[in-house]
Amino acid sequence: MSTSFTMIGGEGPNSYRDHSKYQGALVEAAKEKINEAISTKLDIDFTSNLVNIADFGCSSGPNTFTAVQTLIDAVENKYKKESNIEFQVFFNDSSNNDFNTLFKTLPPARKYFASGVPGSFFGRVLPRNSLHVGVSSYSLHFVSKVPKEIKDRDSPVWNKDIHCSGSSKEVVKLYLGQYKIDVGSFLTARAQELVSGGLLLLLGSCRPNGVQMFETVEGMMIDFIGASLNEIANQGLIDQQKLDTFKLPIYAPQADELKQIIEDNGCFTIEVFENIIHAKGEYPLDPEFLTVSFKVTVGGSVASLFGQDGMEKTFELVKEKTQEMLPQIAKAKPGMQYLIVLRRN
Amino acid sequence: MSTSFTMIGGEGPNSYRDHSKYQGALVEAAKEKINEAISTKLDIDFTSNLVNIADFGCSSGPNTFTAVQTLIDAVENKYKKESNIEFQVFFNDSSNNDFNTLFKTLPPARKYFASGVPGSFFGRVLPRNSLHVGVSSYSLHFVSKVPKEIKDRDSPVWNKDIHCSGSSKEVVKLYLGQYKIDVGSFLTARAQELVSGGLLLLLGSCRPNGVQMFETVEGMMIDFIGASLNEIANQGLIDQQKLDTFKLPIYAPQADELKQIIEDNGCFTIEVFENIIHAKGEYPLDPEFLTVSFKVTVGGSVASLFGQDGMEKTFELVKEKTQEMLPQIAKAKPGMQYLIVLRRN
Repeated sequence: MSTSFTMIGGEGPNSYRDHSKYQGALVEAAKEKINEAISTKLDIDFTSNLVNIADFGCSSGPNTFTAVQTLIDAVENKYKKESNIEFQVFFNDSSNNDFNTLFKTLPPARKYFASGVPGSFFGRVLPRNSLHVGVSSYSLHFVSKVPKEIKDRDSPVWNKDIHCSGSSKEVVKLYLGQYKIDVGSFLTARAQELVSGGLLLLLGSCRPNGVQMFETVEGMMIDFIGASLNEIANQGLIDQQKLDTFKLPIYAPQADELKQIIEDNGCFTIEVFENIIHAKGEYPLDPEFLTVSFKVTVGGSVASLFGQDGMEKTFELVKEKTQEMLPQIAKAKPGMQYLIVLRRN
Repeated sequence: MSTSFTMIGGEGPNSYRDHSKYQGALVEAAKEKINEAISTKLDIDFTSNLVNIADFGCSSGPNTFTAVQTLIDAVENKYKKESNIEFQVFFNDSSNNDFNTLFKTLPPARKYFASGVPGSFFGRVLPRNSLHVGVSSYSLHFVSKVPKEIKDRDSPVWNKDIHCSGSSKEVVKLYLGQYKIDVGSFLTARAQELVSGGLLLLLGSCRPNGVQMFETVEGMMIDFIGASLNEIANQGLIDQQKLDTFKLPIYAPQADELKQIIEDNGCFTIEVFENIIHAKGEYPLDPEFLTVSFKVTVGGSVASLFGQDGMEKTFELVKEKTQEMLPQIAKAKPGMQYLIVLRRN
């Protein structure tokens, strides 16, 4: 997992904490459906009276606490009669994650045993058959690496953009190829960790079938970031050669692509695959908010290559472009905010 | 647990990391005995092929990795034929511990699933019947709080010293009373977490029976710290009233006191209770080393009350006194470096 994609932390008005409230709304919107899925599909034998829950890609909070509590409430509701159940929660993220903050902000009144699990979720992070319910929110839009050919100026499939939003079919195909490998690895690892009958819940955003990256808000914003970086490189403020090889390790699949990867993996039954429409809509039409949203997710990797100054300058330009292009953004095709519930066969 | 007793971290020559090598030698010295205890006394049924190991009071490394690996090697050696065993290790410490550093310095070639468990080990931190082997190194010489009466200038049992090294019988009794409550809570929590037949290993230092605090190196050093603080208070450099209520939350029990607490708890069988003599001896007769050793453990709480300057001045004086009193320190009665192996009934 690219270390440069750790979220920017902190408590300020433009911090991850502030913006994540917005993303966290998806869990809230999906609550009913999560309850229903756990109530009707979870099928575990727990003679040990222990239910193990994990959040893969938890970041440093606080959304993970909401997600995890939603799962616990649903399991408790299902097994009301078993008064002896204890819950153990595994908060997983890369070892670059700020676990100190996560641990210090754990809900004081929590009724579960908390633990942090450092490591890439593209591999195993928990023992075999030890997990009953897993969740992963907005984590499966990364690829573990950008295929080499795409970054190589001398390669016929070199991608001049920082992403595949408007790119050639070959580039998109290479990105998708890597995405298939990564999500396949993720699913294979989870399949080993989950007990038979256990559930894996995936929440995040993807593209509705047929929608191209450049038609979505995400695609447009990434194009603005790319254009801004190019302008700054033209002014000689950042290194053009570095920019030529700078490609974002992000891929937002189409819904059917994601479904196909799950089916190809073969370890899970798809119980739910739904577009969750939530009250707040997808993004507000606010240049400030949009800019900061993408600064939070993409800013870190821009700064690590081009310095803090380069990053700040880039996002000043991004904000201007966002302001200018607001009418176009308003007409962007909506993405899909998905809830996927997989049952371990 | 007093937050001011978190170890001072860092990588410098006077850091915890450097001095902990010395303490870590006890695990090394006890290796054979640990192997033997696990080989002959561990009696668990693991149909799940999962062995759960925990270190209570792990700090931020690296000693915890050595301790944990010693346990894993011993368990693997015992269950050679079971090729499918997986290990999950729970690193526990207060949520003020630096888990980020712990996670970033995990041995890359480790063959276990690592997780961090934040929380006071005087209470439950793991699910019922989930633990097979637990260890705690140099953690049970703290009390969770100093009894109020001892800190109160107007109380008949007010202790003028910063510890009970030369104090009245009443003060020692109150310290021991709190120690009994705390270690009792520790054992009760571990008894719930451990499976029947599981082992709890305790490593640390205590006093041989009949030895008084002021006769040990620890007692002498703490007296030097107290005397130094008093000198500085007399010079008006730190607040005398604050100093009057400053008492260290430390208690080094006599061996039989510790044994009695374990027997009173009643959940464990004492399989091993031994003085481990290790090659390096207990402390080198080096004023620099001795001063830094106690600065590492006590300096944090001195600094939190009297400021960084007050702390630095105190330990300058401590070093002078240590130098002067070296002949007396040379005649100190040796402490006991114990290995205790408890089997959950």
